[in-house]
Amino acid sequence: MKLYQRYAEEIADLIRTQVLRPGDRLPSVRQARRSRQISASTVFEAYYLLEARGLVQARPRSGYYVNAIQPSSEPGTALPAAQSAVVEISDLVFEVLGSTRNPDLAPLGSAFPSPLLFPLEKLARGLTPAMRRLAPERLTEYLTIGDEQLRRQITRRYGVEGLGIDAQELVITNGAMEALNLCLQAVTAPGDVVAVESPTFYAALQALERLNLRAVEVATHPRHGIELDSLAEVLQRHPVKACWFMPSFQNPLGSLMPQQNRQALVELLARHQVPLIEDDVYGELYFGLHRPLPAKAYDRQGWVMHCSSFSKSLAPGYRVGWVAAGRFARQVQRLKLMSTLSTAIPPQLALADFLHSGGFDRHLRQMRQTLAERQALALQLIADHFPPGTRVTRPEGGYFLWAELPPAVDALRLQQLALEQGISVAPGHLFSADQRFSHHLRLNYGHPDLDRLKSAMPVIGRLASGLCGFE
Amino acid sequence: MKLYQRYAEEIADLIRTQVLRPGDRLPSVRQARRSRQISASTVFEAYYLLEARGLVQARPRSGYYVNAIQPSSEPGTALPAAQSAVVEISDLVFEVLGSTRNPDLAPLGSAFPSPLLFPLEKLARGLTPAMRRLAPERLTEYLTIGDEQLRRQITRRYGVEGLGIDAQELVITNGAMEALNLCLQAVTAPGDVVAVESPTFYAALQALERLNLRAVEVATHPRHGIELDSLAEVLQRHPVKACWFMPSFQNPLGSLMPQQNRQALVELLARHQVPLIEDDVYGELYFGLHRPLPAKAYDRQGWVMHCSSFSKSLAPGYRVGWVAAGRFARQVQRLKLMSTLSTAIPPQLALADFLHSGGFDRHLRQMRQTLAERQALALQLIADHFPPGTRVTRPEGGYFLWAELPPAVDALRLQQLALEQGISVAPGHLFSADQRFSHHLRLNYGHPDLDRLKSAMPVIGRLASGLCGFE
Repeated sequence: MKLYQRYAEEIADLIRTQVLRPGDRLPSVRQARRSRQISASTVFEAYYLLEARGLVQARPRSGYYVNAIQPSSEPGTALPAAQSAVVEISDLVFEVLGSTRNPDLAPLGSAFPSPLLFPLEKLARGLTPAMRRLAPERLTEYLTIGDEQLRRQITRRYGVEGLGIDAQELVITNGAMEALNLCLQAVTAPGDVVAVESPTFYAALQALERLNLRAVEVATHPRHGIELDSLAEVLQRHPVKACWFMPSFQNPLGSLMPQQNRQALVELLARHQVPLIEDDVYGELYFGLHRPLPAKAYDRQGWVMHCSSFSKSLAPGYRVGWVAAGRFARQVQRLKLMSTLSTAIPPQLALADFLHSGGFDRHLRQMRQTLAERQALALQLIADHFPPGTRVTRPEGGYFLWAELPPAVDALRLQQLALEQGISVAPGHLFSADQRFSHHLRLNYGHPDLDRLKSAMPVIGRLASGLCGFE
Repeated sequence: MKLYQRYAEEIADLIRTQVLRPGDRLPSVRQARRSRQISASTVFEAYYLLEARGLVQARPRSGYYVNAIQPSSEPGTALPAAQSAVVEISDLVFEVLGSTRNPDLAPLGSAFPSPLLFPLEKLARGLTPAMRRLAPERLTEYLTIGDEQLRRQITRRYGVEGLGIDAQELVITNGAMEALNLCLQAVTAPGDVVAVESPTFYAALQALERLNLRAVEVATHPRHGIELDSLAEVLQRHPVKACWFMPSFQNPLGSLMPQQNRQALVELLARHQVPLIEDDVYGELYFGLHRPLPAKAYDRQGWVMHCSSFSKSLAPGYRVGWVAAGRFARQVQRLKLMSTLSTAIPPQLALADFLHSGGFDRHLRQMRQTLAERQALALQLIADHFPPGTRVTRPEGGYFLWAELPPAVDALRLQQLALEQGISVAPGHLFSADQRFSHHLRLNYGHPDLDRLKSAMPVIGRLASGLCGFE
């Protein structure tokens, strides 16, 4: 991280922790130079960055001021359904996803970041040499748990961040999706109840549906994630067999559970002997100073099954994910062997080499910066073009915004109209078993190129305005 | 195929169809030259090959004679259990497989052919250029069904062989194992009954166990595969929801269902509206003149779910398989999306290019020849070293032998003793839900190198002899 980025992050932290409040003036260039021993240009670069992220604004001949945080502009915590429910969402999900497959669409409904954000050429270059180095005998050795070098790189990385994972616990999977499904299978039987966030990622709902599980929703704050009180109540009232949560940059909310909440979450679940399936696929896409430490870091008794992948952070299409399943590691390993045997070797070796070369962190720094800037742009476009009453999240990482439109807007109708204009969006209906997020959208600011983002957002805003009677 | 190979195959077919019977003299070189317009050396090469495969033998100064087929040397059709059974085999399978992981063992218990039989260097060379050609946008397009070029290559190949598959029906999977599991999930619910061969591949039993399905076994002839009478009876007596069969070179028997039986099988199951999950992973490893046409080729009503892969024929470790699931294609596609999203792209593209280049058939010709020669050697070693009363299959493809030892031999004990001598074998216990193949071994002649095969087989024979009281 460069000096101006570090300084910008420090200021952003002061704003987040309300040491600097809306309307406060940032330190002048002169003050900053003196107190921090940094150059004027470093200070300016830092402030430009903060401005791009929507946290501050320049006032002519006066300086930089902290932006008003408009509390009403953030969606509230949704009240989840009290009952557990059989999940029947797949038909709708397939219908909506099916209609958005056209590559000519502006992909604001996509679940993926733009492939152009990844070092694809470098990764491709590594494939042949990685496979050439492999001794043929290794190909038919027992490879269910995955390549040893890759597992070592992954555990080393976690270790540096403060999360100790036993290499024996780790299983390489066909993307995080397989990891999550294996975890779910390892700890549930048909008919069991699983707790999910509200709203939650539709693929989690589909996984429950596939395994004939029931979903019970837990209230989830758009900024802080799982409400622990709500979870405690759910655990009292339902025979919950597992929780499937995304503590970091939840899909679709983008919420980030504070570290103390993660610790409390892990302790609460351990007391109830309920496994936590932690989906951490966006953990590396933070805009702050530090990677949020996964809930797994607070796991003393092995109840946390930590899942992640490179699909969103480094290598889409390589389908390399992993799981550290704690006390369930052995079951997960067996299920992996029985369902897909092992994960393809060429992508594993190429990624192991890439990580070894140190290219991952360099790439991530750039990607985070790009995503943060795009988020600022997307928020500005929403402020400028969406109908009055729109509320939107302001996540500290990832590439999704969650917009709550005026109740008059039917998101499925909006999705149809947007499609006709060559734009895909993800309607809120997909993110709950009872489809009650009916005037909500998940918007992907990390996939469309800048020009398309700039041209598509006003169209969505105009269509939404039309649906609620504004011009 | 070379001229001498073609001539050898014709003679082999005459022996198989009993036009030439045991003790008959093969055409003399002079006769053959005259009737077939081939050179003397071609005739000799063909006869050497037939001799290597154990079908004929030279008698000094007399010519080549068809070997006696010893009916008693082939295992009989085992009588399957009449009841369906809950499957609980996994612990044993994991225990046995776990003990054979050591790469220093002579791997006669392996399920894989030797990695040295594959064009690994050529495949590795293709990875980087294949990925470089990919437009980045393609990476996040809808890729659940798999790469279009690869799907076209696979359907083209089937088309040439006489099996028409709609490209829309085909889904690329993480090896055949995933394909088979997706099929099973698409057509069953927990508690359902699935018909399998007797004996059957332990991974099929594990898949049933994982999905809480019951197994009912169908009598299976060591040479002709499924006994249709037995199947008809099973269908009458049990509410069978699916059949999981391997018509070509069944694991472990190596049996090959005659084409007319395949057609009758497909028609019988269509009448009962029972889906056939056809596991065809060994279909390309035939020693005869033609690839056995899959059962899928006789499917008029879409009840056949055809599964295969490149793992045993071209690219171990690349984890590229496929399924053409007939009327269940849509369900399978959805299950794939929900469980592992899509299959890794680099291996798919490299294999598509390799197939396009025509390298596959060249490689297969060589591999089949090697396997046929090794089978002849392995059979000779069994004849020379195994205890009297041993019966063994003589498959027309693949790389497994199924040996029925004298009843006094406990195969699990033999497996232990062999391990102590640095040799792995697969005990018959693994191949049935009730573990009744207790004096049987599956022996892999396609994995160990020749020297190891030559040194290991006499050891196994000696140990088996010891266990049944011979010296």
